[in-house]
Amino acid sequence: MELITYPNPSQWAEVVKRPVKNQADLTETVCDILRHIREEGDRALLAYEERFDKVKLTTPVVNQEEVDEAEGLLGDELKAAIRLAAKNIASFHEAQRFEGKKVETQPGVTCWQKAVPIEQVGLYVPGGTAPLFSTVLMLAIPARIAGCRRVVLCTPPGRDGKVHPATLYAARVAGVDSIFKAGGVQAIGAMAYGTESIPHVYKIFGPGNQYVTAAKQQVSLHGVAIDLPAGPSEVEVLADDSANPVFVAADLLSQAEHGTDSQALLITTSFALAEQVKEEVERQLPLLPRRDIAACSLENSKLIVVRDAQQALALTNEYAPEHLIIEAREPHALAEGVINAGSVFLGHYAPESAGDYASGTNHTLPTNGYAKAYSGVCLDSFVRKITFQELTSVGLQNIGPAIECMARAEGLDGHRRAVSLRLGRADV
Amino acid sequence: MELITYPNPSQWAEVVKRPVKNQADLTETVCDILRHIREEGDRALLAYEERFDKVKLTTPVVNQEEVDEAEGLLGDELKAAIRLAAKNIASFHEAQRFEGKKVETQPGVTCWQKAVPIEQVGLYVPGGTAPLFSTVLMLAIPARIAGCRRVVLCTPPGRDGKVHPATLYAARVAGVDSIFKAGGVQAIGAMAYGTESIPHVYKIFGPGNQYVTAAKQQVSLHGVAIDLPAGPSEVEVLADDSANPVFVAADLLSQAEHGTDSQALLITTSFALAEQVKEEVERQLPLLPRRDIAACSLENSKLIVVRDAQQALALTNEYAPEHLIIEAREPHALAEGVINAGSVFLGHYAPESAGDYASGTNHTLPTNGYAKAYSGVCLDSFVRKITFQELTSVGLQNIGPAIECMARAEGLDGHRRAVSLRLGRADV
Repeated sequence: MELITYPNPSQWAEVVKRPVKNQADLTETVCDILRHIREEGDRALLAYEERFDKVKLTTPVVNQEEVDEAEGLLGDELKAAIRLAAKNIASFHEAQRFEGKKVETQPGVTCWQKAVPIEQVGLYVPGGTAPLFSTVLMLAIPARIAGCRRVVLCTPPGRDGKVHPATLYAARVAGVDSIFKAGGVQAIGAMAYGTESIPHVYKIFGPGNQYVTAAKQQVSLHGVAIDLPAGPSEVEVLADDSANPVFVAADLLSQAEHGTDSQALLITTSFALAEQVKEEVERQLPLLPRRDIAACSLENSKLIVVRDAQQALALTNEYAPEHLIIEAREPHALAEGVINAGSVFLGHYAPESAGDYASGTNHTLPTNGYAKAYSGVCLDSFVRKITFQELTSVGLQNIGPAIECMARAEGLDGHRRAVSLRLGRADV
Repeated sequence: MELITYPNPSQWAEVVKRPVKNQADLTETVCDILRHIREEGDRALLAYEERFDKVKLTTPVVNQEEVDEAEGLLGDELKAAIRLAAKNIASFHEAQRFEGKKVETQPGVTCWQKAVPIEQVGLYVPGGTAPLFSTVLMLAIPARIAGCRRVVLCTPPGRDGKVHPATLYAARVAGVDSIFKAGGVQAIGAMAYGTESIPHVYKIFGPGNQYVTAAKQQVSLHGVAIDLPAGPSEVEVLADDSANPVFVAADLLSQAEHGTDSQALLITTSFALAEQVKEEVERQLPLLPRRDIAACSLENSKLIVVRDAQQALALTNEYAPEHLIIEAREPHALAEGVINAGSVFLGHYAPESAGDYASGTNHTLPTNGYAKAYSGVCLDSFVRKITFQELTSVGLQNIGPAIECMARAEGLDGHRRAVSLRLGRADV
């Protein structure tokens, strides 16, 4: 890891720059696949499954027997862990229920908002090197709490034609309605347009590789909502000299093992800590099964020593990390100053892993600096807030003249007339 | 207007189909302009202003004297109307402030959300046939209430190089920080990338023509958030036999005058009402200054008679109107059944114009069926909800074993170690 000491604020933008990906333009390939799915439905989907996931399926549908079987295959300890995580995720997201207030903005003019669940949502959970069953919990549990009528899950099968049992068990615990064996662009297309087997949905959630990301972007240009723009995962540890270098190093490494394009930053006011963490990272790295991946992403990672807490916060807000762990004597005081971050972890006993799995917060978060404009997934992501208003005739008398005047000034006389006619004015 | 009686549910999708726009692919043109703005800043911006808005500017900046002058030019009645509308919009959006709850999901594990304003936001307000100063209020007032540090407004100048005085006055009332003379794609590019004069922002709001829409889509693919995907405006009136055909016709026409691609639907249980409204629309149409536009969009518009209230609601939810006016004896009972809509108006005295201007609700709403997945602009649109969590060492002991087990099952041993090390386990 590169150690950078006391960078000048003029260098900050450069210091917290993310590694630039040389992103291939996948638009054409992705649009081709999406078009096939739209035109040919299941037939195209199964053909792509054979081509990309190397599996010959007769149907994408996962049936109840497969879920039952998965439950039998899984160890009790893991099942209990999944249930504990599910319980905490449910508690935290339950507390996010929206209670709208009625506001009488003028006598006789009452306005309010009401949260209404999105009727049909689609969740995508990648396969690949690790079965991300925790993501099933993070997406399906809030969908259920929000009250979405239909919660659909697509995930690619292994070469044996089966979905990982932990994914199926998590889907059952979280209350997913229907599970389908479908991966990549073809899964996104199936949920966007619907096929004979897979219902179309109004919003698609979930992580994925650059093809999945490009597919989500494409369908989002044509009316299907998506959760978040995606980028490589990242963590920042913000630490003072009270931090334990062993913990800090483990936190940086837990991010680094995600993928070769991950990034981990330490921003600290303590030069001594930075040096200790550097050594500790080198000591712990060889102990990781995924050390090759972690070693790669450590090349994008940095230890940055700054002058004081204020600089540390300013640099943090410039970086806008997906995950921010504050390992400091007074984490609350520092947390108050955080403007740009996805999820913040306070104190020496709050590793990112807690939020990744089981504390209750969501792990679908804005990466790549998107935290400056986006929230992570939360209960809000699964509802719309519809506005309502009721006017009595007195209410319309109170605001009618203002409406008439503004409509006239905007050159929209039909808008004015809808009011004037109701007020019984002679001039209509 | 086409009158459709008792359509079979199998025909519904066809009945509420929106007119398909033959949308040209503007991507190349738009990307060219965006690239020039990014590379050449103000110089490119001013050149495009000359080319598209036919005005030679030396700077895009609107100075305080221009705003002062605008205030002097505007009539007192309009200024009072703008202030009344601003007050109501402020009251309603103030009531949307988010109060997060702290949740202890397990002893020693505390999670919460905090709303933090997006630091820099950009508002786009089109020029064109009518000065849409009401949109300035709808976007800038919630931005101010949310606490956005910098609120930037771009709007195209007239050929005299000036911005309409009502737009400038509304911007002052709403508390916009900086106003710039910039329209179209070049304005979106300036706010996305920044120029010498115009600061870059993290999220861009506001309506516009198909070029502006395409530009917003393009920048949204590269990290700048946008408010909503845009489409033609639309209204549905849901009415029973208690509705006044004069009011209903005026409401349909007030939507029809927006633009030639607008759509207005009446869905009613009363055949008599449908017939009366049809006649009344024909009677009122010639009275509108914008009758040519309205006549065009009435060709996309329909009067639909259905069997009962349940069918009316089901068809409404299938259509997912931007605006829904319920002119019926029991509007609340019907409103309970609304699942898909942007903004709902209850009763015989709540025309869409009320929400367009002055009742307090926002008029930036999901069109084109997007109400199935998107909310309109509200206070939430200007904040992010950052999650926080704090764990004590007891808290980590409570959920640590579950995290370790799940991380192991996902093949992420570094994630497990960040917990195990803190729990002082020997096996690390």
